[in-house]
Amino acid sequence: MSDIADMLRDGDPPPAETSLDEDDRLKPSFVRAVLDHVEDGEAEAARALVRPLHPADIADLFELADRDERAPLAAALGELLTADALSEMNDYVREDIVDVLAPEQVAVFASALDTDDAVAIIEDMDRADQQAVLNALDPEDRAAIEEALSYPEETAGRVMQRDLVAVPEHFTVGQVIDMLRDDGDLTTDFYEIFIVDPLHRPIGTCQLSWVLRTPRDIAMADVMQRDQTLIPVDMDQEEVALRFQKYALISAAVIDPGGRLVGMITVDDILHIVQEEAGEDALLLSGAGDGDINEPIRESYVARVRWLIANLFTALVASTIIYAFGAAIEKMVALAVLMPIVAGVGGNAGTQTLAVTVRAIATNQLTSSNTRRAIVRELRIALLNGLTIAVIAGVGVTLWFGILHLGFVIAAAMTANIVIAGLAGVAIPVTLDRLDQDPAVASSVFVTMITDSMGFLAFLGLAVASGLVSL
Amino acid sequence: MSDIADMLRDGDPPPAETSLDEDDRLKPSFVRAVLDHVEDGEAEAARALVRPLHPADIADLFELADRDERAPLAAALGELLTADALSEMNDYVREDIVDVLAPEQVAVFASALDTDDAVAIIEDMDRADQQAVLNALDPEDRAAIEEALSYPEETAGRVMQRDLVAVPEHFTVGQVIDMLRDDGDLTTDFYEIFIVDPLHRPIGTCQLSWVLRTPRDIAMADVMQRDQTLIPVDMDQEEVALRFQKYALISAAVIDPGGRLVGMITVDDILHIVQEEAGEDALLLSGAGDGDINEPIRESYVARVRWLIANLFTALVASTIIYAFGAAIEKMVALAVLMPIVAGVGGNAGTQTLAVTVRAIATNQLTSSNTRRAIVRELRIALLNGLTIAVIAGVGVTLWFGILHLGFVIAAAMTANIVIAGLAGVAIPVTLDRLDQDPAVASSVFVTMITDSMGFLAFLGLAVASGLVSL
Repeated sequence: MSDIADMLRDGDPPPAETSLDEDDRLKPSFVRAVLDHVEDGEAEAARALVRPLHPADIADLFELADRDERAPLAAALGELLTADALSEMNDYVREDIVDVLAPEQVAVFASALDTDDAVAIIEDMDRADQQAVLNALDPEDRAAIEEALSYPEETAGRVMQRDLVAVPEHFTVGQVIDMLRDDGDLTTDFYEIFIVDPLHRPIGTCQLSWVLRTPRDIAMADVMQRDQTLIPVDMDQEEVALRFQKYALISAAVIDPGGRLVGMITVDDILHIVQEEAGEDALLLSGAGDGDINEPIRESYVARVRWLIANLFTALVASTIIYAFGAAIEKMVALAVLMPIVAGVGGNAGTQTLAVTVRAIATNQLTSSNTRRAIVRELRIALLNGLTIAVIAGVGVTLWFGILHLGFVIAAAMTANIVIAGLAGVAIPVTLDRLDQDPAVASSVFVTMITDSMGFLAFLGLAVASGLVSL
Repeated sequence: MSDIADMLRDGDPPPAETSLDEDDRLKPSFVRAVLDHVEDGEAEAARALVRPLHPADIADLFELADRDERAPLAAALGELLTADALSEMNDYVREDIVDVLAPEQVAVFASALDTDDAVAIIEDMDRADQQAVLNALDPEDRAAIEEALSYPEETAGRVMQRDLVAVPEHFTVGQVIDMLRDDGDLTTDFYEIFIVDPLHRPIGTCQLSWVLRTPRDIAMADVMQRDQTLIPVDMDQEEVALRFQKYALISAAVIDPGGRLVGMITVDDILHIVQEEAGEDALLLSGAGDGDINEPIRESYVARVRWLIANLFTALVASTIIYAFGAAIEKMVALAVLMPIVAGVGGNAGTQTLAVTVRAIATNQLTSSNTRRAIVRELRIALLNGLTIAVIAGVGVTLWFGILHLGFVIAAAMTANIVIAGLAGVAIPVTLDRLDQDPAVASSVFVTMITDSMGFLAFLGLAVASGLVSL
């Protein structure tokens, strides 16, 4: 803290590196220093600390601040809170900031950004605020953003940007270079040039590195690659991300239903989508909903409690099975002691298979071509797991309670439940996928219900059926 | 099938589109048709079907084939199995193919690829085969690959490619363009040009779009951006991926400990890493290990059974708690019927918090700056969840068993266990992260142990302590 104060006295802002730890995250001491300045009304001191930061780090600063510190921080930073920083921010945190800004200010930010980033800022505002911002935009930006908002959320139309470079087929490399040098209005970040026909339909694409390596008098038509991945404007963003991965794309043309080029998607936006969609599995499987630590508590509560209630009712199914065997438990309380082990280990085995299957479906690795093989594979693994656990549990229980019969019963019940868990863990998500449901969302509840119920039923049922105890 | 046969008779291969379904995956009927041709020894017919496919789809074809069909398929396809197709393949599937190839053939593939893709193919071979391939390579490729192999797996050194474009500071834009036009040996896919000092240390970077838009006589030093994200060659690939996301990079310079430019990482490789690392959470949390459906069964078995055994022993902890209350259960068997509900719903609540926390840590959203806030947040959500579930369970149990006292006991136990689950779900992964352990790996076992044990202890303990039943 005191070195930072020293540096400030010297009029020299600290270099950005001192604000980051070895993992490239803002140091807690730095975050605290900035927020303390803001709290003490020393806006200029706070700005001096923040000025050297990258927009992504300024976004992080807001995310790390407490909710009630964010508006004062925004006020203190003034023009340091740039459009770029805003577009890097977590959705919920950005909403907090945008809420306290005037529509004219939001419009200034929006017009500084690519369409997709501007849309991300505006799409979560309520309708009246959204309209006020749109009214404050110049007509061209407004038209672009309104068009983007007309596409459903999480589709290519929302993610694409309208600024791109497209040239007719007859252009030479030299003409393209001259056009790029002359036109100051063009977007700065692009990685390929699209070649279009007179109806503005893409007919080829040319990476910038090819343009640079080709003599001026060659026609673009002779450099371009005709085969290209075209993204329909209404394609789901998860599907778009899979295409980018599959074909190692850096950018791709987006076309409307008439085949006309309407936008471009670049890979930096896809990176966020891949991160989100791939990370979603663990959250969806646990029923944690959006799972964002910046989500308002009320929303997190609603998302999560739904699944806990569902879990409560499926647990009830298991309880009624136990209830049916009440007389057996009264006679041999060891059954009550051991039954949660059978259900719990089975549940874990089911979750393993479920996680593997959901991942394979999400990455297009499991299709109807190899479903049968996947089921056979999981059953074989389940059988190996089941037999291993059966031996350990069987021997352990025999030693603990001194009843060989009980050891056999738990061994058999374990094997049965782990095999059932394997079957359910692959069959349930595959079935949900066939029914066009997200396999990550509800699978867990079904699988747990089956492994719990079957665990208790197999263990208590075998105990009675084998004559270990009577009902 | 018969239309495909018709098309083949016309000598016209079917367009690639007919082989793909609407989700861009190979149609099962197409996969079957190719494999049937292979099985029937009709290699030319199989090749005719496969010829129009993109290398990524050829890779998928091998993944969708059964394990014992892969070698014959590779033999039938011959030169259609390109280096690109091989590099797109799942690691395990590729190993199967590479195993049946001669070292000279693998060397031909490797020399056709960028260093990073060549390394991916070679790194999993056993030492003797690896050496045979290296011996078959030309000295330059061999040196590049050997150097890459000298870096630890999953670090920048393995992921980077050596082919890049670097120029001295005094070069003009025109000189760069001339150099690119003249040098046919350069890499084809690059998105920025690095500017280096005489010691080959990067001092700036220049996107191709800036080069294209700048007059020929301007010096690169005046176009380049001095601030750039430099990746140390030993940086973990997950960390590299986070930098790419944070700073929206398309490519980045990799430097050795002396600060010299040794390679370049491009975003298409990062996309795979993000997909893998983000998707790993669900697999690690469930203890499913690598979770790849192409992993050999024995490896999957070993990875999973370890966690099931761990789960067996933690379940034992819970069982000893039940054992201690055996007398109480004998007197009131309803306790045995209901206790799995308390443990199960608590476990689910713990898993929710765990999934959220692990994701936030992995994406650098949860740092020591906001840990306290995250804990408070989770406890508040847990309290809301706990009270909601307590009311439903309390009323339900009172109605089911007609014992108000039992309803109160389960309500109190539920609330306690869900709050404990929330605390454990955030505290355990945060602690593991502080200890430099992967929070996704072992958290689940600890959290389940706590929610099971505390569930039984709270429910049975409260039943006895409140005088509902005596021990």
